[in-house]
Amino acid sequence: MQSLIQDIFLKTFSNSILSQLHDSAVVPIEGHRIAITTDSYVVRPLFFPGGDIGSMAVHGTINDLAMSGATPLYLTAGFILEEGLPIETLQRVVTSMAEAAQKASVSVVCGDSKVVDRGKGDQIFINTTGVGQVPEGIDIGPPHIQPGDRILVSGDLGSHGIAVMSVREGLSFASDIVSDSAPLHRIVADLLQQGISIHCMRDLTRGGLASALNELAEISTHKFMIDESRIPVQEPVRGACEVLGLDPLYVANEGRFVLLVPANEIEKTLSALRQHSVSKLAIEIGEVLSSPPSHSPPVTLRTVVGTNRILDLLSGEQLPRIC
Amino acid sequence: MQSLIQDIFLKTFSNSILSQLHDSAVVPIEGHRIAITTDSYVVRPLFFPGGDIGSMAVHGTINDLAMSGATPLYLTAGFILEEGLPIETLQRVVTSMAEAAQKASVSVVCGDSKVVDRGKGDQIFINTTGVGQVPEGIDIGPPHIQPGDRILVSGDLGSHGIAVMSVREGLSFASDIVSDSAPLHRIVADLLQQGISIHCMRDLTRGGLASALNELAEISTHKFMIDESRIPVQEPVRGACEVLGLDPLYVANEGRFVLLVPANEIEKTLSALRQHSVSKLAIEIGEVLSSPPSHSPPVTLRTVVGTNRILDLLSGEQLPRIC
Repeated sequence: MQSLIQDIFLKTFSNSILSQLHDSAVVPIEGHRIAITTDSYVVRPLFFPGGDIGSMAVHGTINDLAMSGATPLYLTAGFILEEGLPIETLQRVVTSMAEAAQKASVSVVCGDSKVVDRGKGDQIFINTTGVGQVPEGIDIGPPHIQPGDRILVSGDLGSHGIAVMSVREGLSFASDIVSDSAPLHRIVADLLQQGISIHCMRDLTRGGLASALNELAEISTHKFMIDESRIPVQEPVRGACEVLGLDPLYVANEGRFVLLVPANEIEKTLSALRQHSVSKLAIEIGEVLSSPPSHSPPVTLRTVVGTNRILDLLSGEQLPRIC
Repeated sequence: MQSLIQDIFLKTFSNSILSQLHDSAVVPIEGHRIAITTDSYVVRPLFFPGGDIGSMAVHGTINDLAMSGATPLYLTAGFILEEGLPIETLQRVVTSMAEAAQKASVSVVCGDSKVVDRGKGDQIFINTTGVGQVPEGIDIGPPHIQPGDRILVSGDLGSHGIAVMSVREGLSFASDIVSDSAPLHRIVADLLQQGISIHCMRDLTRGGLASALNELAEISTHKFMIDESRIPVQEPVRGACEVLGLDPLYVANEGRFVLLVPANEIEKTLSALRQHSVSKLAIEIGEVLSSPPSHSPPVTLRTVVGTNRILDLLSGEQLPRIC
């Protein structure tokens, strides 16, 4: 997937904004900086503990805007419906979406729906595109990452992916795991209002923490060191991952993000994050290396047993259709 | 579909912008009027005479922006790919999309791709969302429709739908029919630059001219009279429609639009439209009635034999997956 995106989309749609590879594109309109992001949601099943495709399509797109520091303003909703979809299912998803948007104070301002023949879709696919505004003076993104920056995660990892898998695979032992799907824009707004100098943020969706860190290391051309023992993973999630042969660092989250801030901002940042229930488990997990050996990998994991290992990008998708 | 949209989407996402039911939503950002529109494209087959899903996904969304008078600026692209899709097919579509965007001077600034299992999608679905800016002083839309307004179409109808059907159904007699898929924003910009007071525009996609007129009549609460003999339809399209049992007034177009202008602007509008090859067959086809009897239908068609008939909304889709 990574090579598909690199090879086809980036080369073919070549332009300076797209090639920044940020969670959302920041573009100028009349001197204002407008953030735009798009995501299609194909999660299976549609409903899972802690959320559904509708609320997730709102949270995921809001979060991509928030990661550039933007205030989410407007959402669009594009539905691809499979013929024969029960109308009650559609109503339930749309209601959940509308509630999530209302809670997050964003408006769904336009929409579209297409119906495809039975067997040519899978109940409901949703695209949401978000438009937001980046406040004056805020500039957050991979180019601002600096050696010595501290790396934080906003909470425990893997709940979303495992919650979806538990329903899909009928894993009864994982039935108490609830998706972390949540909007993050109010937390980000709070950090910015407190004047915290955030260098970069990224939400930990498809591919989890490991993929996000690898992407950021690659774009910024810096090298990261992460301490495995500090990464929070709930015990039931860890257990489910062991049974399923998954690594929680690669499992998708829908309400977790990584932040890179200067070392002198770390206490203020953690204290601000911990005020919000969604990020109450926020913790420092590593740093951007100041003078890494040239042969060192983009992201190194100091394991719980004290050895170093390469935290690599996965070549394939560990969990398909999780978001 | 119409009742689905009305009942579920509008009621559930209830807000004042969405309920204007315009081709694009016009929203305020810092005092500027930003137009936003979204569309998913599920056309089958992916390639047809005169276009493909990629170029169409660019043209269709640009046109929805243009219909509110907006200058298209940015596009997003969301792909849902079916597992097993040949990489050459994807490359061909993406290349076509990039070329169409470049020709239209819009940038694809962010994208997303998801892969679904074989048999849960159909090769490629594309969502494009467009963001544009409405120029100062321009306000175009259904609320501006007035009794006495003249109704124009920008060209001959039905080519897109029939071109797609001809490939899908293997109609050799229709093989010389080419889709009308084209961007309309430069034509609209030209009309606006000439100071023509456009009251309303709508592009004639799904459901064709008949659906667009019915929607506009309903939203504006005015009544329209259309002269069938003036509606341009190419002879091969008319022939194919007869064989297929279709009415060209309901067939989708991807480069045609209807305009409502004051009577005193008609000559200037036609002359400006006819300067552009895409709208060289532009013609006046009817008017907004000044004092219709209360029992008259929203849209009346004066037939070629001189009788009046109701030009109704279709209850179902005449041609599925044509856009």
